[in-house]
Amino acid sequence: MFQRVCVLLLALGSVLGAQGPARRNVTLIVTGGTVVAMDAGGRVLSPGAVAIDGRDIVAVDAPAAIAAGFSAAETIDATGQVIMPGLINTHTHAPMVLFRGLADDLALMDWLQKYIFPAEARTVSPEFVRVGTALAALEMIESGTTTYADMYYFEEEIGRVTRAAGLRGVLGETIIQFPVPDARTPAEGLARTETFIKEFAGDDLITPAIAPHAMYTLDTATLKAIRAMADRLHAPVITHLAETADEVKTSMQRHKLTPTQYLDSIHFWGPRTLAAHAVKLTPADIRILARRGVGISHNPESNMKLASGTAKVVEMRRAGLAVGLGTDGAASNNDLDMFEAMRQAAFLHKLQTGDPRAIPARTALAMATIDGARALGMDALIGSLEPGKRADLITVSMTAARQTPMYDPLSHLVYVTRGDDVRTTIVNGKVLMRDRKVLTLDEADVLRDARAMAARVSEAVRKQ
Amino acid sequence: MFQRVCVLLLALGSVLGAQGPARRNVTLIVTGGTVVAMDAGGRVLSPGAVAIDGRDIVAVDAPAAIAAGFSAAETIDATGQVIMPGLINTHTHAPMVLFRGLADDLALMDWLQKYIFPAEARTVSPEFVRVGTALAALEMIESGTTTYADMYYFEEEIGRVTRAAGLRGVLGETIIQFPVPDARTPAEGLARTETFIKEFAGDDLITPAIAPHAMYTLDTATLKAIRAMADRLHAPVITHLAETADEVKTSMQRHKLTPTQYLDSIHFWGPRTLAAHAVKLTPADIRILARRGVGISHNPESNMKLASGTAKVVEMRRAGLAVGLGTDGAASNNDLDMFEAMRQAAFLHKLQTGDPRAIPARTALAMATIDGARALGMDALIGSLEPGKRADLITVSMTAARQTPMYDPLSHLVYVTRGDDVRTTIVNGKVLMRDRKVLTLDEADVLRDARAMAARVSEAVRKQ
Repeated sequence: MFQRVCVLLLALGSVLGAQGPARRNVTLIVTGGTVVAMDAGGRVLSPGAVAIDGRDIVAVDAPAAIAAGFSAAETIDATGQVIMPGLINTHTHAPMVLFRGLADDLALMDWLQKYIFPAEARTVSPEFVRVGTALAALEMIESGTTTYADMYYFEEEIGRVTRAAGLRGVLGETIIQFPVPDARTPAEGLARTETFIKEFAGDDLITPAIAPHAMYTLDTATLKAIRAMADRLHAPVITHLAETADEVKTSMQRHKLTPTQYLDSIHFWGPRTLAAHAVKLTPADIRILARRGVGISHNPESNMKLASGTAKVVEMRRAGLAVGLGTDGAASNNDLDMFEAMRQAAFLHKLQTGDPRAIPARTALAMATIDGARALGMDALIGSLEPGKRADLITVSMTAARQTPMYDPLSHLVYVTRGDDVRTTIVNGKVLMRDRKVLTLDEADVLRDARAMAARVSEAVRKQ
Repeated sequence: MFQRVCVLLLALGSVLGAQGPARRNVTLIVTGGTVVAMDAGGRVLSPGAVAIDGRDIVAVDAPAAIAAGFSAAETIDATGQVIMPGLINTHTHAPMVLFRGLADDLALMDWLQKYIFPAEARTVSPEFVRVGTALAALEMIESGTTTYADMYYFEEEIGRVTRAAGLRGVLGETIIQFPVPDARTPAEGLARTETFIKEFAGDDLITPAIAPHAMYTLDTATLKAIRAMADRLHAPVITHLAETADEVKTSMQRHKLTPTQYLDSIHFWGPRTLAAHAVKLTPADIRILARRGVGISHNPESNMKLASGTAKVVEMRRAGLAVGLGTDGAASNNDLDMFEAMRQAAFLHKLQTGDPRAIPARTALAMATIDGARALGMDALIGSLEPGKRADLITVSMTAARQTPMYDPLSHLVYVTRGDDVRTTIVNGKVLMRDRKVLTLDEADVLRDARAMAARVSEAVRKQ
């Protein structure tokens, strides 16, 4: 009762304005929704509110307490919605949205050799990358992703478009042994990467990274050079790992070691290193990755659609690995919706372990937020709603027929929600989408440019 | 060239109105979208149009040809959309939408015994069933389902609400050995079923059916009585089959036969019989079901979430079985979105067969439309856009960022589309939803009633 009176008084104070102690001026308050904080305590406030000043979260509390303590330049009413950390997509190839649905349902080699490789060889250019990244950024903002990890070509273009769109990115310039659109040799790739990393050094949104494509597409000398450069420039490393049985076979033939063991033998692993897919791991591999503090990106939809296999997520989590979620590029998924990735992670591991308790809703949500942040080595900054962290958050509508009734917001976020339910996307304290209107990109322009580029892609595939 | 001139003349004729031969008056034309007919020829018309008179499709052709041949009281412009057959959900328990998200991530027996059974025992009533079915109907209309197969209690209430909402239903009154909310004994259940079947005899939308729950929850005498009644009243039969390993174990212990073999031994199988789940089948079981002409409902999401296992869909299709898709009840999925069921069917069987060519997009679409119609014995009436069939169709938006660019509409329908993209839902020639506004149900009333009923469910679960 005493508490209720206090809340009432606080609320009254906020309405009357001047009665209480002086309120701190902040830039933005998001209030009235159910706050799912994804902090260590698993806090859920219904209703709750978040006060944001500049780029940071300054308080997470009941609406009345926030109203009593803070005066905001702007307030977003999230009644009927969930307020939660922005989603972290730990693996994608942003510009490949321009190849989505170009070719599906094919054997991997047909898909790569008849469609993706010819299309990439003939169309990937700085312009292609700009147009594709703008489309990917639009889709990510619209579906509640606030941070993404990327690996592609012309990554500096991706960095510029991502920064302009207002998204947070850990962006890796791809290094690969054979000639690619932005580098004829790995040495050229390394030189480009150094320039790229220096361009974005200290950037508030973009963390430049090095992205060695995979152990089977790079020789030992290049892999060692990449590790040395990463250490020298304090840059994160992103790589594909053990995605398919073929990769493991190649590694065993070449090195008599699994991909994980081989990379360990050349001292490639380290913290701030992200391994994407990690489908075909042995228990010994998992121990190595845990010991080296490597982050994992699990991509359930891509692994299913390409028939790669099922990553041992339950075992990896048990070994203490930070396992985030990713969509993979839209050529192999075919979208960037992290809500689908969550649902798929929950569904897939229940099925494969035979245990419906595996990967419950809260775990799937953690993988898409705080565990993704841990996998990227950024959990001090993002992944949960806590004072002092960056203000990367979303509000998600919960009132559709398919979301009615609601007994548990966490269940609904994973099992019946889609990216389209996101109403507000905020990164670094800046509102990127309000009531589903994206503010940092012109949607019509982005879609028009993407369709024009797609016409060139169709032409390129036809010509081969 | 000649053809082009003709089309031009026809189009001109349609504009000028009186010049061409007399146009047939029809009730509705849907035009301008990409028609994905799902007929035997796999026809895709881009753009295309469908002419509807009363409850039937009278023509599927290019927009100019339709405009030249028909004059409609109402025209729906589907530019930028796909026009396709309405989706057929071959397995659900409609009122269980009221239990969605009530309890997830539990072992099956905990889920049933601590939540679903107590909640059902204390809340399932005619009113509960009416409120739940209205919510389910709203969700189905909004997500493009035009026909659904159901099994629950008080099925006559489900029939009345479904008919009022304008949906097509194959609705099975559940028969089970133990006391349930609408019958204390199987004999009482059978008597109710006969009354129910007679109430809806000859109905244009509702096909009343008998739904023996499963072989392990019914004795042989009751199963035989059900088959006899189905034959006498010419009613379809819907049952769960081989959903879990436990069911198979029970059957082997009781009868030294698999569930399929046991039901065959008592002459239970026949055409117009639908078996839901069919997860744990032997090759011999598949041969029996194929020989008896039994339809199959595959429920990939439910089977994953409840960790039941993976149905042998590729093998069943190869054996000639009609395999439709279902969502299962929303207590175990947790929604009724058939686009997710399609995507999941494609993803799951690629993964489990290790072959990315398994269940391509066109097959997933067929399972959700014409094969679902075959599984229900209704393929002469629904499941594809062909003259003479009932006008059950939907239009689906294809212009979102996540659907851009579009190389292949079939790929996009399966891999990047959701129920929320459906713009128009038409059943039996009647528009049930136009521009996402449902016309046959008051959305606010349905949601309010559902929330009130959910409060009672929460109370019932708390009290146990």
